[in-house]
Amino acid sequence: MIYQLYYWPDVQGRGEFVRLSLEEAGAPYRDVAREPGRGAGVGALVRFLDGRHLERPPFAPPFLQSGRLLIGQTANILQYLGPRHGLAPKDERGRLWTHQLQLTLADLVGEVHDTHHPVAGSLYYEDQKKEARRRSADFLQTRVPKYLGYFEQLLAKNTRGTHFLAGTKLTYVDLSMFQVMSGLAYAFPRAMKKSARRYRRLLALWARVQDRPRIAAYLASPRRIPFNEQGIFRRYPELDAGGGA
Amino acid sequence: MIYQLYYWPDVQGRGEFVRLSLEEAGAPYRDVAREPGRGAGVGALVRFLDGRHLERPPFAPPFLQSGRLLIGQTANILQYLGPRHGLAPKDERGRLWTHQLQLTLADLVGEVHDTHHPVAGSLYYEDQKKEARRRSADFLQTRVPKYLGYFEQLLAKNTRGTHFLAGTKLTYVDLSMFQVMSGLAYAFPRAMKKSARRYRRLLALWARVQDRPRIAAYLASPRRIPFNEQGIFRRYPELDAGGGA
Repeated sequence: MIYQLYYWPDVQGRGEFVRLSLEEAGAPYRDVAREPGRGAGVGALVRFLDGRHLERPPFAPPFLQSGRLLIGQTANILQYLGPRHGLAPKDERGRLWTHQLQLTLADLVGEVHDTHHPVAGSLYYEDQKKEARRRSADFLQTRVPKYLGYFEQLLAKNTRGTHFLAGTKLTYVDLSMFQVMSGLAYAFPRAMKKSARRYRRLLALWARVQDRPRIAAYLASPRRIPFNEQGIFRRYPELDAGGGA
Repeated sequence: MIYQLYYWPDVQGRGEFVRLSLEEAGAPYRDVAREPGRGAGVGALVRFLDGRHLERPPFAPPFLQSGRLLIGQTANILQYLGPRHGLAPKDERGRLWTHQLQLTLADLVGEVHDTHHPVAGSLYYEDQKKEARRRSADFLQTRVPKYLGYFEQLLAKNTRGTHFLAGTKLTYVDLSMFQVMSGLAYAFPRAMKKSARRYRRLLALWARVQDRPRIAAYLASPRRIPFNEQGIFRRYPELDAGGGA
């Protein structure tokens, strides 16, 4: 069976969390909106959102087709894929914990988006630049330390698998953490460099994930969309005050 | 077994989604931070957040203790409780769909919070009033119609149980939708009144949930904390422009 992933074709966005898990799993998948031809491209994605022919249309991308299942919401997709591909514990306790961490990362990702769009996603960045500067300063000073401090502490506490966030083996949440650290380093290079010493375990995790053969191959391939200023993580130097993180 | 819910004692907040499910289930639970005495009160909650004695501390409330399990993140708690108490389908397809809708509601709830705190949760409302006005206007004009329009359409599409969002029976997502509609009506009475005709099915669902015996008893009890201006849904008349929704 071949998974079909639907996500906007020009940004990593939330779809990237799904891509990383599919790639690490070595699972065959189509990135439908990035493909040319009939039944593919952005048109195929939009038809699902329009949803006229569906009883259960998704609210927004990413969504994943797996046989007759159509699954939306990033964290939901990952909790579906995880146990199927050795990327999550199979016991309930472990699954709940992994999912809990993924949802906490999702909250962080939402806050990253709002650093450059604090007023409205429907307005241009240029129309909320002043507000973005205030929000980013608070984000780097209070929110990043709270989130990353939490995850750093989890790595220190996980005596069963000190290299990973949940349980004894790599899970989808480690891949997501890699993406978040990559994104923060892209968007806020000054702030993140300044605070690097506080997140040694997270940076070590980041490096280990990056070096995994399938992830390394993926990152070097054209399947990996580069970071850019249309995605969630955007490099606007004026927001990277370097005041915190 | 008695569940132990941990959430801030003075606001409905995200804890309310869990409370509503526990109440509808008739499940015995303690609302620990609202209780007096040793091992209770806000102190008990904060000890979990501090987490020094825990291998797997939660990032934020709400969290629920169920026997030896400690479960964080609202949607995660609900997907744990749902199938145990007849508030979610038991098959995978139905569980994924219900959870997907809950996560979509969680996104909406995050946006509601940001209507009054677009710049920083750590700052007072008074320090971001101007930005809050802009954000709320966009929220009512573009976001509420997108979200509520989506859920209204789902009610129309669900031919298996036209009274409910997911499947043939009431699920935790219907209870969460009730809470969201109640909160929006509290925070934005003018805007919501203006748009009532567009969300007839949602308002009917809201009324039906409100009339369920256990929910009605709960709402009339002191266990239900009133809406107030410290929670997620806040009534600031200057934000209720009535321009959209």
